[in-house]
Amino acid sequence: MTIPATTDILISEVGPRDGLQSVKATMATVDKCRWIDSLVAAGLREIEVASFVPAHLLPQMADAAEVVRHALQHSGVTVMALVPNLRGAEAALRAGAHKLTMPVSASAAHSMANVRKSPEAMVEEVRAVLALRDAIAPGVRVEAGVSTAFGCTLQGQVPEDDVVRLAELLAEAGADEVGLSDTTGMGNPAQTSRLFKRLFSTIGERTGAAHMHNTRGLGLANCLAAYEAGVRTFDSSLGGLGGCPYAPGASGNVVTEDLVFMFEAMGVRTGIDLDRLMAARAPLQAGLPGEPLYGMTPEAGLPKGWAPQPSAAQG
Amino acid sequence: MTIPATTDILISEVGPRDGLQSVKATMATVDKCRWIDSLVAAGLREIEVASFVPAHLLPQMADAAEVVRHALQHSGVTVMALVPNLRGAEAALRAGAHKLTMPVSASAAHSMANVRKSPEAMVEEVRAVLALRDAIAPGVRVEAGVSTAFGCTLQGQVPEDDVVRLAELLAEAGADEVGLSDTTGMGNPAQTSRLFKRLFSTIGERTGAAHMHNTRGLGLANCLAAYEAGVRTFDSSLGGLGGCPYAPGASGNVVTEDLVFMFEAMGVRTGIDLDRLMAARAPLQAGLPGEPLYGMTPEAGLPKGWAPQPSAAQG
Repeated sequence: MTIPATTDILISEVGPRDGLQSVKATMATVDKCRWIDSLVAAGLREIEVASFVPAHLLPQMADAAEVVRHALQHSGVTVMALVPNLRGAEAALRAGAHKLTMPVSASAAHSMANVRKSPEAMVEEVRAVLALRDAIAPGVRVEAGVSTAFGCTLQGQVPEDDVVRLAELLAEAGADEVGLSDTTGMGNPAQTSRLFKRLFSTIGERTGAAHMHNTRGLGLANCLAAYEAGVRTFDSSLGGLGGCPYAPGASGNVVTEDLVFMFEAMGVRTGIDLDRLMAARAPLQAGLPGEPLYGMTPEAGLPKGWAPQPSAAQG
Repeated sequence: MTIPATTDILISEVGPRDGLQSVKATMATVDKCRWIDSLVAAGLREIEVASFVPAHLLPQMADAAEVVRHALQHSGVTVMALVPNLRGAEAALRAGAHKLTMPVSASAAHSMANVRKSPEAMVEEVRAVLALRDAIAPGVRVEAGVSTAFGCTLQGQVPEDDVVRLAELLAEAGADEVGLSDTTGMGNPAQTSRLFKRLFSTIGERTGAAHMHNTRGLGLANCLAAYEAGVRTFDSSLGGLGGCPYAPGASGNVVTEDLVFMFEAMGVRTGIDLDRLMAARAPLQAGLPGEPLYGMTPEAGLPKGWAPQPSAAQG
């Protein structure tokens, strides 16, 4: 993890990738760039800006290389891209992304349905991406994100041993970071704590981000549990964009605004300015007119007398 | 706390009081009774059913005595009533309530605005209620709930020393339990943990319920922090009814359905059947047509393969 000394944790904003690929509308490139600029202005230091997938599958991401190149103009920001396979990785590396993230499902059923590959075959794909990275862009970090790590809508419960074993395989293959994703919003704080503690004891400092969902309202509680277990990188999405917004308030992704408010109120420094973060909703909304945005803190506003607490971070 | 051996925590449902007094419409007595019956059927063992205040101030609560008498027909349920003063306490005791709760604000500004009494004067009111209880209904428990314990919309931050000192005064006055209420939704997990730990070390087993709000989305995370600090009673409201529903999703009270789901998923036994709890939304909605109900778990449904975890409670 690359966390500056002046902050305690890293909030990794996934909205421009995870959020935008989940909505029907396609945001114009100029609007994406404006939104990313406002996220940078708010203090985000890692942003997942695009997914390198065939444009006929995800037209929302057809401008991935252009968006990456725009984001690279900002200094001090890690420009991240999702790549599902070697071909995507090559395109992302050619565009200049600083960091790649590859989803690898712990549920065989989900993996086959999603990428028509078994989890083991995906580990080999990660290995191939790492070899390519070594060959053409050795400074780039590669994260593997274990999806359905907390449960699967296809196979139901996912054994914790399967998740830890997959994470171990990915670390052995050379992934720089291995995160856990609650793709289906089935995780709970006790499970989150157990899994991340096992990850730390198995793969040590390669333990990566907590990517929790808020499907059943437990997103922030799960992030708190992950923090207490030692996690210092958290994925979230401005306005809760993405996931499965089939009902009001039932967003998929943890809302960045609420997550930052929680940590800053606790005295855990994120490096993010909450007022500017709220302001970054405007360019998002402008680029996606009519799309519902979520977030309790934006609706309620900051508390009277609000001031971030002095740092009280553990460890 | 009266927690049966088969459960680990007590969920205290406050909807019929806190929720119903916050909405404009008045629920018919017969509908209140039907709703309370469904809550009991779901396994709730403590329900705040009414507030004993003058009917001209809160017409929604004019039938308080009748509702208490109805709830008393259920065995194994603690029938609780809010009383703001001695007069209300006498009415509640005459109606047969098992337990009274009295709000005492830690913010002098909020206390004066709300009940036109200082916090110190409210401690004397609690003392008077305890004397009356001793005289006419010695088996009844009296809880004092320290409101604005996590911040105040009038005075801003509320010093933690003030909260702990007030709790100590209330315990010294003889209150059986002293809980803390995040009336304004300004609390965070670190503060929740600190305050309850200080309460336990100051007033020991008289430490009562955590009454957290979800105004900024931190309700469940705060309940988790309170649980980890040793709290075993949690106030919440079915459908998140009550508080300040000025915006979609921005409910005041923690949603009972989400709270129970979190704890049951963690293996912390509540004694509550989640399917029946969801079913208790129907009589609530029937009695308050058009009123928005909240809750992420009700919207998303229980996860595939859902089964409550075996008890894994600490201590």
